[in-house]
Amino acid sequence: MCRWLAYSGTPVLLDTILYKPSHSLIDQSLHSRLGVETTNGDGFGIGWYGQDLDTPGVFRDIGPAWSNRNLREIADHVRSHLFFAHIRATTGTAVQQTNCHPFRHGRWMWMHNGAIADFHRIRRDLALAVDPQLFLDMEGSTDSEMMFFLAMTFGLEKDPPSAVARMAGLVEQVGHEHGVEFPLQMTVAVTDGERLWAFRYSSEGHSRSLFYSTAVETLRALHPDLEFLREVSDETRLIVSEPLGEMPGAWNEVPESSYGVVQHGEDELRSFVPQAA
Amino acid sequence: MCRWLAYSGTPVLLDTILYKPSHSLIDQSLHSRLGVETTNGDGFGIGWYGQDLDTPGVFRDIGPAWSNRNLREIADHVRSHLFFAHIRATTGTAVQQTNCHPFRHGRWMWMHNGAIADFHRIRRDLALAVDPQLFLDMEGSTDSEMMFFLAMTFGLEKDPPSAVARMAGLVEQVGHEHGVEFPLQMTVAVTDGERLWAFRYSSEGHSRSLFYSTAVETLRALHPDLEFLREVSDETRLIVSEPLGEMPGAWNEVPESSYGVVQHGEDELRSFVPQAA
Amino acid sequence: MCRWLAYSGTPVLLDTILYKPSHSLIDQSLHSRLGVETTNGDGFGIGWYGQDLDTPGVFRDIGPAWSNRNLREIADHVRSHLFFAHIRATTGTAVQQTNCHPFRHGRWMWMHNGAIADFHRIRRDLALAVDPQLFLDMEGSTDSEMMFFLAMTFGLEKDPPSAVARMAGLVEQVGHEHGVEFPLQMTVAVTDGERLWAFRYSSEGHSRSLFYSTAVETLRALHPDLEFLREVSDETRLIVSEPLGEMPGAWNEVPESSYGVVQHGEDELRSFVPQAA
Amino acid sequence: MCRWLAYSGTPVLLDTILYKPSHSLIDQSLHSRLGVETTNGDGFGIGWYGQDLDTPGVFRDIGPAWSNRNLREIADHVRSHLFFAHIRATTGTAVQQTNCHPFRHGRWMWMHNGAIADFHRIRRDLALAVDPQLFLDMEGSTDSEMMFFLAMTFGLEKDPPSAVARMAGLVEQVGHEHGVEFPLQMTVAVTDGERLWAFRYSSEGHSRSLFYSTAVETLRALHPDLEFLREVSDETRLIVSEPLGEMPGAWNEVPESSYGVVQHGEDELRSFVPQAA
Repeated sequence: MCRWLAYSGTPVLLDTILYKPSHSLIDQSLHSRLGVETTNGDGFGIGWYGQDLDTPGVFRDIGPAWSNRNLREIADHVRSHLFFAHIRATTGTAVQQTNCHPFRHGRWMWMHNGAIADFHRIRRDLALAVDPQLFLDMEGSTDSEMMFFLAMTFGLEKDPPSAVARMAGLVEQVGHEHGVEFPLQMTVAVTDGERLWAFRYSSEGHSRSLFYSTAVETLRALHPDLEFLREVSDETRLIVSEPLGEMPGAWNEVPESSYGVVQHGEDELRSFVPQAA
Repeated sequence: MCRWLAYSGTPVLLDTILYKPSHSLIDQSLHSRLGVETTNGDGFGIGWYGQDLDTPGVFRDIGPAWSNRNLREIADHVRSHLFFAHIRATTGTAVQQTNCHPFRHGRWMWMHNGAIADFHRIRRDLALAVDPQLFLDMEGSTDSEMMFFLAMTFGLEKDPPSAVARMAGLVEQVGHEHGVEFPLQMTVAVTDGERLWAFRYSSEGHSRSLFYSTAVETLRALHPDLEFLREVSDETRLIVSEPLGEMPGAWNEVPESSYGVVQHGEDELRSFVPQAA
Repeated sequence: MCRWLAYSGTPVLLDTILYKPSHSLIDQSLHSRLGVETTNGDGFGIGWYGQDLDTPGVFRDIGPAWSNRNLREIADHVRSHLFFAHIRATTGTAVQQTNCHPFRHGRWMWMHNGAIADFHRIRRDLALAVDPQLFLDMEGSTDSEMMFFLAMTFGLEKDPPSAVARMAGLVEQVGHEHGVEFPLQMTVAVTDGERLWAFRYSSEGHSRSLFYSTAVETLRALHPDLEFLREVSDETRLIVSEPLGEMPGAWNEVPESSYGVVQHGEDELRSFVPQAA
Repeated sequence: MCRWLAYSGTPVLLDTILYKPSHSLIDQSLHSRLGVETTNGDGFGIGWYGQDLDTPGVFRDIGPAWSNRNLREIADHVRSHLFFAHIRATTGTAVQQTNCHPFRHGRWMWMHNGAIADFHRIRRDLALAVDPQLFLDMEGSTDSEMMFFLAMTFGLEKDPPSAVARMAGLVEQVGHEHGVEFPLQMTVAVTDGERLWAFRYSSEGHSRSLFYSTAVETLRALHPDLEFLREVSDETRLIVSEPLGEMPGAWNEVPESSYGVVQHGEDELRSFVPQAA
């Protein structure tokens, strides 16, 4: 299993979110509290959008995030208004750069915590369902990348919630065909650089943790002394595998079987149901 | 493209073959003379059989062989009677451990120099031809690993020359279906720990270089002063992408479209023709 | 801080000791029970003596031991009668191969768990005390390597206990000069390939844990069903940072301020007192 | 030996300078024309100043630059008005991150091509000359880092040409004391984020190559069709180990025993003479 965070809002140095909080993602790489594993040391990645470039930059490496000096450097010197960060604990697939999140295709990024149950056995059937043109761009061996490519096959770039629902539907169908009771366990973040979708779902109805930050104006009222809250816009939002700190009122659980949309204007929170692919 | 060597004979420290010769494989990683690229710095690997273990040990790493201290250590401290060594120059696929040669399955090892032309485009069709049970064990993204798994699908463990011929036939057939004029370029070594097969073939009839060492007794007569030659058995044999040194009479080119078998008793050299898969 | 083990006895596949036990060193890399840190993922190393080579082979790499496939391969294919293994949790110095244990000089190997307090500040003074000829061979930046080179400066190759005592004495003297109350905390293993010394000491008299295995014949009487115990010689001995499993009667704590010698014939356990350098 | 480039001028994506030119630094990592080695694959680094941060970001990694995907990502997504890039071919010291250039201290960066002759032997004497406070921050084992720390000891932050001259003087003095005829061979770039100094010197008067780009307005007159030249400011300047392309009139050799200063207003070119330290 893994841990991740997604940030959208006022441009900040990545360090502000990645390292500064008391229970930061980097701290979680050594001491996760809510994850299946306390240690997430099997590679990591960040992906960020700049001011004027369409495609996000992606920096991924094997080895633990906690000791990676290059990650520290980038966090200290790169600003972004929308970025992903992910720390990995492999469920069996190789520790290699092409298995690190986030995955990118054109302007889209995808990251995932969870697993396709018995992925080893159903991997081939899922691979056959990937659009042959897209198949050419798959480089790694993880269930997470497969989910991304299936979602793209099902129209991610046009309608992300529907594409993810069809991906989930296919995984469950193929899993059931192979006798897997609960084929899917996932929290997924996906973005096109404008909007950000976050999904929480599992076949057994007992999904990995996922939280979103409270509206900034509410937080400002609760914590009038926090300078950081005065500096960021009302629309700033964080979605995380587990809370980054202990600030009362700051975090809300994403409900089971639902997804949220972070966007200009009002954010949304909706229920999520897999669809027949 | 890449460079490789295969050794079979009297047990030696790997160092004797890997580092000691004047134009050793390690030297070739920086200064290949006959390769498509002079530099082979995109990962490397060795695989060796021990005295009493069925399965070979495999040590593979990303980065250049020339500066790898662990390779130096293993070469200085491990003996083997049958081992492979490979240095990689990627033709596009990722530099990662699962793309480094030799590949292993059970007691079998495989390594390759060459390429499937337009592999990116025909990869999916080839993947579909791999036995579904074997497909589960593919970890990397190279044409070389795909060739290995296709050969296993076609019975490598029972009849290596026939399985490799059918693999080559399938690659050519699928390539031609996609409009590729010369789909295959290969020099391949494969072993089960007892016998060693080496293939040289290309669709265009202009294959990468491959050499085998002259019979030890002939070499002893030519070079009575060389102590190394007195220490190794008559059956000792090397097969290499390019000669390891300048010793007159030591190296013979494997002919176009042929394969050799290194085994107890007389070695063999036969012609190679792809077969309809 | 770190974890380590030293094995001396009947030649075994490294795997037998490194991976097989229920709370193996590899398990400790993720879930140490007695260490200062539960995670030891900042590099690792093994060093082993072969049958007929004077100098040990050393395999060290950055990144965690738990996911390193090459370590797994070597453990599955290399046998040794005397070997060291070490997993590292850095106390600040860089994660790099030259900072991984064991350190080697000629036929000698050294590994360490602990720290020189305020090493950053007193490093230069200690470096000045290293024999100028030996200084040339220092490659890393750890306190552990410095301790090894100081011990060599003080005659490690002639009288290890005395050399280590003088090293400890110097560290304490220089530390005190810089106002450090408790300059040294160490468990150290050192060997020349024949004998094996293990030291437990700290300036504050509260040292990191260290255990040695009970005499094999006693263990055989306690556990007559364990096949492994029937296969190894009476002289087989393990020294470990923390017990590898739950076998009753198997482990004895090395007392505070003492050292043990594993050797042909009777092993020894003696008190350790730093000496004026 | 190594290759490097230093850029100062209109902010550009690093890619523009690092990858786009026909004989780019990345191309030089495989096919250097003027270097001592054609291959520079033993690590690399970049360092860049952002708009509003004092301290440069530094990204360094082991392994070759040509296959490093993270370098490619950063080059595609980071802009800078002043940056260094370096590719390394080790002259013997370990391939590790702390030995990769550029080296940084506070807001200062340093990179080097060349070598201190017999560094192994005179390293200790040079280390003793480093300011004890600065000594604490040395992390690697190269002659290049040593030169940087000696220059800081001699007042780099106040008067770079004088500090570098005293460093060179000391290296020559200590080298001569050890019987080394030509102790120093160097091309060095150093910057504080405002100004950029580049030195070319060797004890034997036969230094590694170094070039600076012709004034932009001159180049514009020569090549009125080149869009890139219309986009960059008059003050834009490149200093490189070897020319990045074949553009006639673009490159001028830095004379033997001289240094240049790139700064607001007129740049300078002066002679360089080592001084007694």
